[in-house]
Amino acid sequence: MFKTESASVMVGDRALDATFASPAGALPGVLLVHGWDSDQSHYQLRAEDLAALRCVALTFDMQGHGSDEARSDQVSREDNLQDVLAAYDRLCAHPQVDPQAIAVIGTSYGGYLAAIACALRPVRWLALRVPALYADAQWHTPKASLDRDELARYRSQRQSPEANRALAACAAFRGDVLVVGSENDQTVPAPAIRSYVQAFREAHSMTHRFIRGADHILSEERARRTYDSHLNGWLSEMLVESSAQLGG
Amino acid sequence: MFKTESASVMVGDRALDATFASPAGALPGVLLVHGWDSDQSHYQLRAEDLAALRCVALTFDMQGHGSDEARSDQVSREDNLQDVLAAYDRLCAHPQVDPQAIAVIGTSYGGYLAAIACALRPVRWLALRVPALYADAQWHTPKASLDRDELARYRSQRQSPEANRALAACAAFRGDVLVVGSENDQTVPAPAIRSYVQAFREAHSMTHRFIRGADHILSEERARRTYDSHLNGWLSEMLVESSAQLGG
Repeated sequence: MFKTESASVMVGDRALDATFASPAGALPGVLLVHGWDSDQSHYQLRAEDLAALRCVALTFDMQGHGSDEARSDQVSREDNLQDVLAAYDRLCAHPQVDPQAIAVIGTSYGGYLAAIACALRPVRWLALRVPALYADAQWHTPKASLDRDELARYRSQRQSPEANRALAACAAFRGDVLVVGSENDQTVPAPAIRSYVQAFREAHSMTHRFIRGADHILSEERARRTYDSHLNGWLSEMLVESSAQLGG
Repeated sequence: MFKTESASVMVGDRALDATFASPAGALPGVLLVHGWDSDQSHYQLRAEDLAALRCVALTFDMQGHGSDEARSDQVSREDNLQDVLAAYDRLCAHPQVDPQAIAVIGTSYGGYLAAIACALRPVRWLALRVPALYADAQWHTPKASLDRDELARYRSQRQSPEANRALAACAAFRGDVLVVGSENDQTVPAPAIRSYVQAFREAHSMTHRFIRGADHILSEERARRTYDSHLNGWLSEMLVESSAQLGG
């Protein structure tokens, strides 16, 4: 991801030995997967921060969200998984993107779909904030029709990769992982977060944090800043480390 | 430093709204200025890390260093300042570099020269690790001939911008600053470091750290890692913040 070239710096008639190190080749691509009842507009600032870190970032609206919100009660997990895969493919096709250096960042429902996508597409870095968890059954049922009490019960217990599609994808994942939970999350409580963390048995690295006092949607500015700091620090570390692996 | 463009992601015959954010325009340039008795070879890994952060980094050997070490006892601060300025100009002339986004990182003697260079060239971000301090007198005297006891006395007392060329340059500097000292530094002790920190009266931001238990040259791996972490964190923050200022 970088190249070095010798150079001379002239000072008067003297030539100083010098070396340029500069970025080389394609850029990392980052796919941002929004949560339920959200849309790409909430991720524009983050996408711009990622571009500042010299990544190509792609945000998108899943079916049933953004301008397609009217269909919100019709879309299934299968529909939205296809959306994520299509967006992933679009990102990889971007002329500046290195398809071997793709990060996927998903929040809540988007984290759940992002985890599953890792089993279907090459992903190098996976960041999940408050990833939601669902039983595999009713995969084609509109997501809005799923029984909420049943969902809450399911998330209040530890689940294992053997009986859950998203966790199975995590168990097979060999890239680097960030999992961020919220300490006071009523929607995706600690057992679900811990199920994800435990599922990553083969990950190259694991960074797991709970944000103290935070709720599911990070209502408080302080919590949002903490998450920004976790995500930016983790991603910077990953980009630098990958360069050490791949570089000249 | 970034651009955004609307896009559509096709899923079957549906078009999802999407947005690309990608780096735009020239890259930040980073000039690495080595210390006395050092040379560019000690900065290659850091330069590669900087390239991984999508900067163009330039390392170079000052006169009297590297392959020119035989002249070590002949070079003056004026000579080496001219070297730094020439390297700066070379970096700005690199076709990928944005001359409005230059960082200079200097260590010890290189930090001293880097501070002075800021008064003579536009510098946006300035990182000084254990910056050395010298009285202005004997500016053209070979650096190796300066009286060491006198130097030690000078550095053991707080100095002010009114009577020191490097500190005066700091006082006029309006960019972002990182100053890292070593807690157990016998060569550049705390009063000299604090003189630098206090001198930055107009800086846009100041990040100042002492590395606990560290000596001047960071003999211990743990101290080097701490410095890496400070520098990478600071620079990542600067690059992201500058994008927020300059971006679309």
